[in-house]
Amino acid sequence: MSDPWQECMDHSVEVTKKAGKIIYEALQKHIAIMQKSAPDDLVTETDQKVEQLIISSIREKYPTHSFIGEESVAAGAPSVLTDNPTWIIDPIDGTTNFVHRFPFVSVSIGFTVNKEIEFGVVYSCIEDKMYTARKGKGAFCNGVPIKVSGLEDISQSLVLTEMGFKKDPEQLKTMLANIKSILTIPVHGIRCPGSAAVNLCLVACGSADAYYHMGIHCWDMAGGAAVVTEAGGVVMDISGGPFDLMSRRLIVASSRAIAERIAKELTEFNVGRDDS
Amino acid sequence: MSDPWQECMDHSVEVTKKAGKIIYEALQKHIAIMQKSAPDDLVTETDQKVEQLIISSIREKYPTHSFIGEESVAAGAPSVLTDNPTWIIDPIDGTTNFVHRFPFVSVSIGFTVNKEIEFGVVYSCIEDKMYTARKGKGAFCNGVPIKVSGLEDISQSLVLTEMGFKKDPEQLKTMLANIKSILTIPVHGIRCPGSAAVNLCLVACGSADAYYHMGIHCWDMAGGAAVVTEAGGVVMDISGGPFDLMSRRLIVASSRAIAERIAKELTEFNVGRDDS
Repeated sequence: MSDPWQECMDHSVEVTKKAGKIIYEALQKHIAIMQKSAPDDLVTETDQKVEQLIISSIREKYPTHSFIGEESVAAGAPSVLTDNPTWIIDPIDGTTNFVHRFPFVSVSIGFTVNKEIEFGVVYSCIEDKMYTARKGKGAFCNGVPIKVSGLEDISQSLVLTEMGFKKDPEQLKTMLANIKSILTIPVHGIRCPGSAAVNLCLVACGSADAYYHMGIHCWDMAGGAAVVTEAGGVVMDISGGPFDLMSRRLIVASSRAIAERIAKELTEFNVGRDDS
Repeated sequence: MSDPWQECMDHSVEVTKKAGKIIYEALQKHIAIMQKSAPDDLVTETDQKVEQLIISSIREKYPTHSFIGEESVAAGAPSVLTDNPTWIIDPIDGTTNFVHRFPFVSVSIGFTVNKEIEFGVVYSCIEDKMYTARKGKGAFCNGVPIKVSGLEDISQSLVLTEMGFKKDPEQLKTMLANIKSILTIPVHGIRCPGSAAVNLCLVACGSADAYYHMGIHCWDMAGGAAVVTEAGGVVMDISGGPFDLMSRRLIVASSRAIAERIAKELTEFNVGRDDS
């Protein structure tokens, strides 16, 4: 039997590349910024334009499929994962980077059936790197197979995370205490590149050994989680339990040993869920 | 009268490109790591090889000139700035990035006469971006003129810094408290890319609006400081006073308003000097 979802994945690659081109061109022009909810949570005309392009092109081909998209959800669409084939879309992952022309900006698509991720596509459009992963068939960057570093010793690791302003002073305190805990293990270093989907792909191709985040959304994770899993990485919840796409939190790593050590170091704070 | 230092600058560009090629090729191969002083302060065979290449090629052409290089200083050479024409060299800026193949790795050369920076050359070799700046003649990336963003409002800014493990718990605490102060201004975000010279160039070309660092070395700063100054940026000390190349600390920004606001937010800690 032929792979029922390969055609969807091929379509994702095509539309993601098209979206990346729009983003890249917009970066050359003036960027009209509209403020969404907070200074570090910006949305631009391009963001909405790209999501519309992606969703309309997919809806035309697959009218019965479901969608969860960052911009649609911001506009009031539901964000509940069902068993229906579902496209989880971040039109511009790293919107703040995009606004500032900081070079990590990506388009991310994850595709689930029966709530399981079937494939992921992440296009880092300034770097011109197309990451793809189909369940059980490995991960690729521009068509070349990629693998995690495989590192087991956390003291040799490069760890990714992101620091955002938190209104709740306790959350801010915990976020910084977590960074302190990881730094003092010690590790080789911590990097904050600013695009969750790219962070996942950086772990997938061995340029970093771990990434953790609380407060991330399903559209930030779905595409990249497939890439890192297929590259041989470990994806788990912040608690050390199984990964939950709607939980707004994750750890990925080059090995179970590193993921579990990070889980052990982190103090959790409540970030809510995408589906409630 | 012809510019007496233009020939030196042209030579810098040439040798920096050659060095970048060696680094790029080494990234494709196995990297033999030697531990220097701490897990986040690595040095590789390539680091020493590249510094040797740069210094020997310059020494042959300019036998009376002085040198301050990261690897030479680690091997016991003096690190004192004199009035003599001096080449300040970081063969691999972002060594930890290099070890992990994290994509910000650069070669940095700054050139001083009478303790003043005359030109800077930074080659970000994975991105293939050659930043150049000659005093009074503007800054360029791959030959195209670049300018800082010009942003004055810090609440709209993207700020760069780096987080390293500090043995002294008070320094670690202050470093994280400084991040908290900047985040809560608030700003759009903080990024930690891991290469000081690239950070300076990211501010120079408007991809970020500020960068601050305590614990940096003169070879991390000399090349990039010239680039950001010539791109219209402001370079100052952490205290808000004049920039001192040997002080191991700096703030650069797209405007005086942003640089001064960052200086106001930061608590200093003692990082020593390069020349004592």
